[in-house]
Parts: sequence; C-alpha cells; structure tokens
Amino acid sequence: MSQALTAQSPNLLDIGRLVVCCADKPGIISAVSTFLHNQGANIVDLDQHSSGAPEGKFFLRLEFELKNLGTRKDAFVETFNERVAAGYEMQWALTRATEKLRVAIFVSKFDHALMELLWLASRGVLPIDIPMVVSNHDDLRAQVEGLGFNFEHIPVTAENKAVSEKATIELLEDKVDLIVLARYMQILSAEFVSHYTSRIINIHHSFLPAFAGADPYRQAYEKGVKLIGATSHYVTAQLDQGPIIEQEVVRVSHRLSVAELKHLGNDVERKVLARAVRWHAENRVIVDGNKTVVFTK
Amino acid sequence: MSQALTAQSPNLLDIGRLVVCCADKPGIISAVSTFLHNQGANIVDLDQHSSGAPEGKFFLRLEFELKNLGTRKDAFVETFNERVAAGYEMQWALTRATEKLRVAIFVSKFDHALMELLWLASRGVLPIDIPMVVSNHDDLRAQVEGLGFNFEHIPVTAENKAVSEKATIELLEDKVDLIVLARYMQILSAEFVSHYTSRIINIHHSFLPAFAGADPYRQAYEKGVKLIGATSHYVTAQLDQGPIIEQEVVRVSHRLSVAELKHLGNDVERKVLARAVRWHAENRVIVDGNKTVVFTK
Amino acid sequence: MSQALTAQSPNLLDIGRLVVCCADKPGIISAVSTFLHNQGANIVDLDQHSSGAPEGKFFLRLEFELKNLGTRKDAFVETFNERVAAGYEMQWALTRATEKLRVAIFVSKFDHALMELLWLASRGVLPIDIPMVVSNHDDLRAQVEGLGFNFEHIPVTAENKAVSEKATIELLEDKVDLIVLARYMQILSAEFVSHYTSRIINIHHSFLPAFAGADPYRQAYEKGVKLIGATSHYVTAQLDQGPIIEQEVVRVSHRLSVAELKHLGNDVERKVLARAVRWHAENRVIVDGNKTVVFTK
Amino acid sequence: MSQALTAQSPNLLDIGRLVVCCADKPGIISAVSTFLHNQGANIVDLDQHSSGAPEGKFFLRLEFELKNLGTRKDAFVETFNERVAAGYEMQWALTRATEKLRVAIFVSKFDHALMELLWLASRGVLPIDIPMVVSNHDDLRAQVEGLGFNFEHIPVTAENKAVSEKATIELLEDKVDLIVLARYMQILSAEFVSHYTSRIINIHHSFLPAFAGADPYRQAYEKGVKLIGATSHYVTAQLDQGPIIEQEVVRVSHRLSVAELKHLGNDVERKVLARAVRWHAENRVIVDGNKTVVFTK
Repeated sequence: MSQALTAQSPNLLDIGRLVVCCADKPGIISAVSTFLHNQGANIVDLDQHSSGAPEGKFFLRLEFELKNLGTRKDAFVETFNERVAAGYEMQWALTRATEKLRVAIFVSKFDHALMELLWLASRGVLPIDIPMVVSNHDDLRAQVEGLGFNFEHIPVTAENKAVSEKATIELLEDKVDLIVLARYMQILSAEFVSHYTSRIINIHHSFLPAFAGADPYRQAYEKGVKLIGATSHYVTAQLDQGPIIEQEVVRVSHRLSVAELKHLGNDVERKVLARAVRWHAENRVIVDGNKTVVFTK
Repeated sequence: MSQALTAQSPNLLDIGRLVVCCADKPGIISAVSTFLHNQGANIVDLDQHSSGAPEGKFFLRLEFELKNLGTRKDAFVETFNERVAAGYEMQWALTRATEKLRVAIFVSKFDHALMELLWLASRGVLPIDIPMVVSNHDDLRAQVEGLGFNFEHIPVTAENKAVSEKATIELLEDKVDLIVLARYMQILSAEFVSHYTSRIINIHHSFLPAFAGADPYRQAYEKGVKLIGATSHYVTAQLDQGPIIEQEVVRVSHRLSVAELKHLGNDVERKVLARAVRWHAENRVIVDGNKTVVFTK
Repeated sequence: MSQALTAQSPNLLDIGRLVVCCADKPGIISAVSTFLHNQGANIVDLDQHSSGAPEGKFFLRLEFELKNLGTRKDAFVETFNERVAAGYEMQWALTRATEKLRVAIFVSKFDHALMELLWLASRGVLPIDIPMVVSNHDDLRAQVEGLGFNFEHIPVTAENKAVSEKATIELLEDKVDLIVLARYMQILSAEFVSHYTSRIINIHHSFLPAFAGADPYRQAYEKGVKLIGATSHYVTAQLDQGPIIEQEVVRVSHRLSVAELKHLGNDVERKVLARAVRWHAENRVIVDGNKTVVFTK
Repeated sequence: MSQALTAQSPNLLDIGRLVVCCADKPGIISAVSTFLHNQGANIVDLDQHSSGAPEGKFFLRLEFELKNLGTRKDAFVETFNERVAAGYEMQWALTRATEKLRVAIFVSKFDHALMELLWLASRGVLPIDIPMVVSNHDDLRAQVEGLGFNFEHIPVTAENKAVSEKATIELLEDKVDLIVLARYMQILSAEFVSHYTSRIINIHHSFLPAFAGADPYRQAYEKGVKLIGATSHYVTAQLDQGPIIEQEVVRVSHRLSVAELKHLGNDVERKVLARAVRWHAENRVIVDGNKTVVFTK
C-alpha cells in the first residue's frame, strides 16, 4: 500500500520492488542482497519462501530504497540481469512503488464488483489506473462514464465471439497490464487467455472448488451450507480451475433465501476481488504451477 | 431484506412487522399471536427474547402476512392497541415491509461510509430513502449530487453551533426518521440528541470501549493490538457511550502503518455501519437500557 | 447451555424445551402458546421459521418454565398431543433442560475430536452423558479409561463387518440417544444408519461439498485453497452427503505443509463437532430434507 | 511446526533458527546471508521487518539448513558473533528446530487453558517440554499428575507472597525457559517479573485494552459488546499492559448470560494462549518496546 511506505520512507519515488522466482539453490539471498547493498540500496521489507524438495522452488519479494531509482532503473535492470539473474536462471521483475498497473475491467450487468474497483481506484486506495471498462452489454455505461472512466461496449454472441475477442485484443494492446473479470458473463477462449497468461483475474461467486459452474448461490442454498464464499483466481483455459489468489466466506443461516445469499455474497465478492487486485498490483502474487504464493502484509 | 420475502411470499405489500417491548409476564405471545390469527394474519417469522428476572423485559419481533394490509393498517393499529398493547403497557410499532425509512446522512470530509450507504440505497439493497446528505463542509457536494442525492451544506463553528443545530432540526423536520453519522466530525449537543432519541446511529472507528476518543487508529498502532475494529452505536448525550448495535474486527500485523490501519479500518467501518442501518431500517434493533437486542437474520 | 438458564430462571428443573415441525398453516403459534399459557407455563425463549411456499414447513423451538415440570411432564405430553399436536399433524418433542443426552462416541486412532468431547462433558460444559466410547482399534483405551469413561473395542474387518455392526447395535441398545463419529474411519452400512436416522453426527475434515472423500487436507494443499475447514453433518446412506449442521474455516498460506494443514484442521474439527453436538443435545437442530434448521443462541 | 519441516527437509536435526534485532542499517541481510552461505548453510525461510525511520529497528527471523548443525552450533555461534553480530550490535539468538522450550505453567483453579497446553504438548503438537505445573491451590493436582506431569503446590497469601515467590524462583532455576500464566490468579511482583523479562506469557480474558482488570466477562455483558475476546501478552510490571502477542474474538448476542460468555470465552482463551506459546517456542515473537513483531506462518 503506497500510502504506508510514505510514512516509513522519505521518498516513495526511490522505492523499488523486486520479485524473483527460480529453482532453489544455496546462496540466492546472499547474491541478491549483496548486489543490492553494493548498489547502495537498503532493503526495507523482505519475504521469502522455498517450496521444498524435490524440485524445490525459490520465491522472493523485497522492497528496497535506492536514491534516484527513477533514473537508475534501466541500468539496475541490466546489471542485475547480468550479474545475478542469469546465473540462477531467475524469472524476475522490478517495479517502482509509484508505477501504477494499467487495468481493464470486464463486466456484464452486475455492478457491485466493478463499482468497488472504480471507487477504490478513484480514491487512490487501490494503486491502479483503469484506462477502460469493457462490457458485452451497454447497461452500465452511464454509471462508468459518470465516474469519469472510459466505457467500451463490445457485444459478444455465439457467432461473433472470435471476431469480438480479436477486436478486444486490439483495443487493449499496449494499454493494459491486467484484465479483471468483475462478474463478466462470457467464457474467454483459450486463444484469448494465452495472450494474458497469469494476467487475467476472475472473481467466482463461490468458495471454490465447491459450487463451480452455474448459479452457485442456488447450489449453496440447496446444499444447506452454513458458510458461503467467493474466490478470486487467475484465469486459465480450464474454467474455474486457475490458481487461487484469495478466498473469503461469510456465515449464513436457514433464514436466508437465494436472493439474500446473493446480496451477502456480493459483498464478499467485491471485497475478495479488490484484495486480489491489490496484491497483484503490488507484485505480491507469484504463480507456482496451479497454486499461488501470496506475500501479504 | 425485502427481496428475500418476495421469494417466500406472494405479496410483499401484505407483509407487516410488529415489534413489541414490555415488562415480561406470562401469556404475551399467546395474546399477540391469537390476536393476529383472529385478524386473519399468518406469522411468517418470529423472534423473541426475555431478559430474565429480576425486572425481566420481554422483546418480540415478528413478521406476518395479512391480505390488504395497506388499507387495513390503521384499523389494525387501533384494535391491537385496545385489545392487546394497553393491557401489557407495551411499547410497540407496526411497519409495512414496503415502507422505506427516511434517512439523513451527516458527513464531514471522509467519503467511504457515505458512499457505501448511497450506493447500497441506489441499488435497492438497503431499504431506505435518503432525502438529504448534510455536511459541515462543502467538499463532497459533487460526489453526492452526481449520484442524484440532495446535499445540504451547514457550516458549524464554535460560535454558531447552537444556531446551526437549530437550522438543521428545521431542515429535517417531518422529512427524516433516522440520522446516520457517517464519520461526522462534530459532537451533537444533548439538546439536539434529545430530538432523535435512539434515532441517531454513529460509526466509531474503533472496537469500543477500546480507543474511545480521538485518533483511534493511532492509539491502536501504538498499543500494538492484533485486531482493529469499528463500532456502530446509537448516539446519546455521552460521547461514544451509546448502545452498541454492531461491531466487527479485522486482523492486522506489525507491518502496517497508521495510514494502512486507516485504509483497512475504513472498509470495516462502512460494512459495520451499513449493517447497523439495515437492521434499524428493518426494525430488528430494540434498545434495552444501555444495550441493544438485535434480532438478526 | 444449562448454566446460562440458571442465571435467568429460579429453577432449571422447571424448564422445558418444545420442538415442533409440521406443514405451515395459520394459527400454529397461537395454538401452541395459548395451550402453554393455559397450563400455567411461561415462554422464556422462542424461535420460529417458515420455509415458505410452496409446501411451506413450520419449525418452532421454544423454552418454557412450568412449576413441577418433572411430575407434570407425562400429563403435559398427553394433553398437548391430544389438543394441539394431533390437529396439525406435528412431529414434536418435549425435553427437560436437566435431561442429558446419552452419547456414544465412535473413534478409530485420532484422538483430538474424541478428547475435546470427553473433556467438555467431564467439565459439565457439554450437556451430555457418554456411556461408552466405541473403537475399531484398541489404541485409545488408556486415554479414555484414564478419564473415567468406558471403552469398547469392536474390531471391524471386511469380513466381519455385518457381524460387528450387529454386535454394536446390541451394545448400544437402550443405552444411547446419539452416536458421534469423532473421526471414525469405517463406513457404516445403510442398514446400521437406518437404526439411527438423524441421530448419527459425523465430522468431516473439509469444507463440504469441497474435498469429499479421502485425504481432504492433501486435496486442499494441492488445490492451493486459502481457507481450510471442517463440516459436521448427520450421517445418511450417502457418504459425506447428509444434512450439514455446522461448518467453520481457518485461513492458511502457501507456507504450510500438508502436515501443518492437518494440525490446524484438527483444531477446527474438534470445535465444529463440539458445537454440532451441543446444538443437537440442546434440541436446536431440526432436519428439513437434506438441510437443517439450526436455532442457535 | 516441526512436523512440517520434516516434509520439506531431509533432517530436522540440521535446521537452525536465527533471530536478529538491531538498529536498521544498510547491508544487514547481505552480511547475514553471505555469512550463512559461506558456512554452507541454505536459508529455507526468511522473514524481515524494518520499523521505519526515525530510529528504525531491524528485525529478522530465518530458518536454515546446515549439515551437522548439532556439533557445529557452538563454533557457529562464536564465529557469527565475531564476524557479523558484533559489528551491528545485534541482539540475536540461534536455536535448533529440535530443541524444545522448557515451560512452567502457573495456574489457580480454572483448568481449560492448562489442559489445552498439557494436551497439545503430550500429543507433540506444541514443541515444548513442561517440567512442572505450579499452582497456588492444590485443586488440579489429580488432573495434572494423571496426565503424567509434575504438580507443585505453592500457596500464596498476602503475608507470605515474597517468601513464596522466592521459593518459586528457586524451584524454577535452571529448569525453565518460559513461564505461562494459564489463568493464574496472583499478581507477580515487579521483582519476580524482572527475573523473566519477556519470558512470562499471560492470557487475559478480554480483548485488551478493553475490559482490563477484574471480571471482564461481566464488564462485556454490561457494556453489551457484540464480540468478546482474549489477549495473550508478555507480563511486565504494569498489570495487563505488556506487549500483546495474539488476540482473537468471537461473536456474541443479547441471548447470552455472563456464564455463557465465560464458556465461549474460555474456548477463545485456550486457543489464543496456545498460539502465543507456539509462536514464542518457535522463536517467532520479538519484543519491540511495548509492542511485538510476530513472524507468523
């Protein structure tokens, strides 16, 4: 949360976030932290995880302060790559705390998850820019434009699906780092998904893997569960099966109708989705096969 | 939640809510339910509580279905009063499920709790009408009016306090059933509060009675608590001491700054306040001295 | 919780609990409460639910105080049956608050859920008597007998299953009102279950319907869920499919191994099972098809 | 949790835990991790926190694997001290994952928190040894000895307090690393506490700082709070004011008597205390003034 760093650091512009994933070997932390120290950087927060043998993977996220990071970032990237990352065959990324992720929100007719994101972004609480909202219906145009955001209506039918997905990809190109499906009622093709691997976040309105598929609140009602929930996950070619980022539940009773489960569930959905988007935007989530490592605060 | 009743009842217009509070004696439920049965009403939900000897109090909330309740309500009220309520010296109220409470929201500069209420009311999720938003600052006018609500700016200073409170009371007169303080940064006078006994709901940004008074998130930070919370309560002449309606907490860690506690806490505040307002609007809250009976779903 | 009633009622011996289930019709509460009033009983707590049209069902649980309930109970039962229950074709039961349910606990080798129940019962916190612990292994004998409870070892093999179930039924006969499967690693036959309809409570170590079947903690680990849970339900002929009584979850992270998920989960299991047993023992649970109505406090 | 490490590491005997606290300066992680790497150790888990300027403090906890740690530990300690710790004026500690903390439990008459700890320790779930239970009453002797633990009865009166504390200190000497007050109803003198700075853990039966002092459940009942809780903290000379390690709450309603709040609260107390003791025993807690840094899993 960028606001917090302000309190702890004289200059947010000088805060960098380094995320690393590679095969686990002795000496990685020493190599990374010594490199940073030699560059004049000071580590202010570090979280690390090893997934354990066999085939253990190493995951690292750290925040550091480096004077004039803005002008020095390109050189830092090149040098780090050469001296550290290459030797360990790291997948890695460096971002600055002041960089905002560019997010397209896809939505159909339900507005609750969308509005939560627009609102948190407007207030500066969620560190993202939202260059556009994309919908297969025109219903929410007024609400979205009323808050000052762009709204793109791209109808999707069984016939035009391939065409409309192509149009969407062109629309997003070079403008968007992440797609958020805020109750978007279309299934994206494997082809579309392949353009945004680990960069599409969905909110599913159940506590997955329970009640995958259609109408989960009715399923929950009929099963008589005592807690309902929501799940935010990365989208893969397998529907509702991608790596889970965050989940939450809320207690329910026999007194609640399906409609009331939906109202309660909507509040859980928007909360869970906002949290998942924040964590992604702050580089706290690393995909590990069909699971995630999440370095929460 | 009115939507839910629809699913269970052919006609929401025919649903009444009866709330009763009196000294506990044998036979009250029998008297009330037999009266309802004789009127042709069917009880669809009933919750009851006795506070126990000595000086036990009886609390009852029930929902019933009665054909043509709209035209029959006045007669029902008169007859119930005469045949049942008078004998037990009941405090009681009858409302129809379709009646919406008229709520004035008081706010200063923080928008999160305000926006949550406006938004839930706009979407029909919260069964209230909001005839006006009242603020001692003009900052939030555009946001409020942009969503189609009236905004009244009534500045308050040390000098004009009595005058501005008088103006406020005139402004609200006959237009408002409930006042909600959605982070309103003025202390209402005992005189003002006496006009709205048990009809002013406040949200306090701590888990009361801990951290009453100013800057509770800083207090929480300095104390190093592991959970922070929010409390919604009725306003009385004693600051932060009125009957508690609802509370909630969220887990925090040593990693979070005061600013981050505030962001997390804001989400708890708006959730807790919305819940308290819903329960009040659905006649689920009965004040019992300095405490409340809350018949939740 | 019987201790609580003491505080509110001069004589726990005079407290009765009436539970009713029947087709919903107008007038039931009036009939029941008027009957009670005419008997001289005072209702101290009442909770009611109607499941809504079509085929609406009526569910009621109430506690009343009636002087000398002990000597008057038989007559009360007969009269209530004749004057009220028969006309509405009620399924109903009357118990006294001082009656303790007789519970047999079935267990295999895991001790956590068993020990929690023995311990709570020993301390008088859980209002049950435990005439025996039954196990298909002899491992836990010393622990159980050390706390002063009877331990019955009934080995079960693929070959002797029918015989051992028959022996178990004979062992329990007239001694037990409820069977609790506290991580009992045998599947009871449909024949056995039919002797104890809605009177066998199981604890399943997942948040059902997710991860039904074997090794749910490993399934949860491999799926990468962010919450794990436990489910207590009545046992039916369909494995892991019976009406759910209670569920609870706990947050987990990528740092936890399967073994650690088990440890955390064990604590959830024992808590959820103890709550379900308490609610059953206090007549708070009514089975409604494949679901439950639970009148919690 | 030692079981977990087993899954990830071929030899738990070779796992060490290093905890460091010092003034924050650039280069500390580099210095520590490079030292470890040069010793042939592999870091398997690392968590770090900086408390921010001004007077920023650095906190680190890491687990590493080092072949033959058992025989090499003394040399490691000496070398680390000389080459790394001295230069940064570190407070630091190295423990092996297989070392069990020696804990004395102090108790009066309530058994719930005591029994939870004895039980978890007996089952190997909590990595502690309990050389003795100390009580100012003799009531729980049979329960404690029945589980195979030593029970020491040291009566405390207003008159003999200094003498009995002195006797207690002698009894514990060289036998105990941590004292746990599991609802011990005596206030320890500042003199006693000074022998065990940051090594006495108490469980307080409220959500501190709310309801400090006597009879917190009655205070909570009278205040009408909607959540009750428990707090585990280190004991200092100021009663109920020491650094908080862990807190938890549970939802309550108007239906619950003081006795029922106590029963619910007891379950929260034993859970919170067990968690605090585990975290201390796994070297996850670092005291930072009147607060704690807790590196949870």
